[in-house]
Amino acid sequence: MPRPPLPPAALELLRRANPAVIAVLMPDGQPMSVATWYLVEDDGRVLVNMDADRARVAWMHRDGRASLTVLDGAAWYTHVSVRGRVVEWRDDPDLVDIDRLSTHYLGGAYPNRERPRVSALLEIEHWHGWGTAAGTE
Amino acid sequence: MPRPPLPPAALELLRRANPAVIAVLMPDGQPMSVATWYLVEDDGRVLVNMDADRARVAWMHRDGRASLTVLDGAAWYTHVSVRGRVVEWRDDPDLVDIDRLSTHYLGGAYPNRERPRVSALLEIEHWHGWGTAAGTE
Repeated sequence: MPRPPLPPAALELLRRANPAVIAVLMPDGQPMSVATWYLVEDDGRVLVNMDADRARVAWMHRDGRASLTVLDGAAWYTHVSVRGRVVEWRDDPDLVDIDRLSTHYLGGAYPNRERPRVSALLEIEHWHGWGTAAGTE
Repeated sequence: MPRPPLPPAALELLRRANPAVIAVLMPDGQPMSVATWYLVEDDGRVLVNMDADRARVAWMHRDGRASLTVLDGAAWYTHVSVRGRVVEWRDDPDLVDIDRLSTHYLGGAYPNRERPRVSALLEIEHWHGWGTAAGTE
């Protein structure tokens, strides 16, 4: 799989509010996948945000390696996958990050203001694209 | 995560031709995710089919643990993830399996008749659903 930087077509796909699935590692090394919101930061890192008590948070602290597949919501033959690892954790006490994600995907603040949230920032080490996101068309 | 059997709402979602992402393990244990076609067989196993020369085939032979996340194509807040492992491999010399997948997703035979294909059958060991596929609504 190629290393960054990603070509413009792949970045453009990643920057849209597309459906995505993240895969992380359970303590026994088994892959676990789940749908997720994500946001590509200006520095190229990928933000994800979780309920602080979710098991996945502990698993990603234990082993920060992750893979994210983003589907083109209009035609999912086009998709981009990125692999990397968590390089930063931060608490989200004022729900700033989850509100950014919620605004990106739903156009407004995150409805649940009660639960503590935490953010992870992934550094992309490899990427692969299919369809128009492959940057080859 | 609950064990099978899956509730009817989750099975109904899985049986539709929805976008899906599979996560498998690379030789160093890193998760790798990619968009995939899949089909739930009558016995509950999940069929996926790959170009026989794809690196993922070798990785899944080495460690058959996998996770599949299926998004509701109409509203991806609803999604189902299943975890399990490859319990059977079979070559697909007559392209029967890939044609079943292609017919399910695209309504016709798979266009590329030149490349050898191979099928893996996953047994579901755990599942998790969100939205209407959680079976709780």
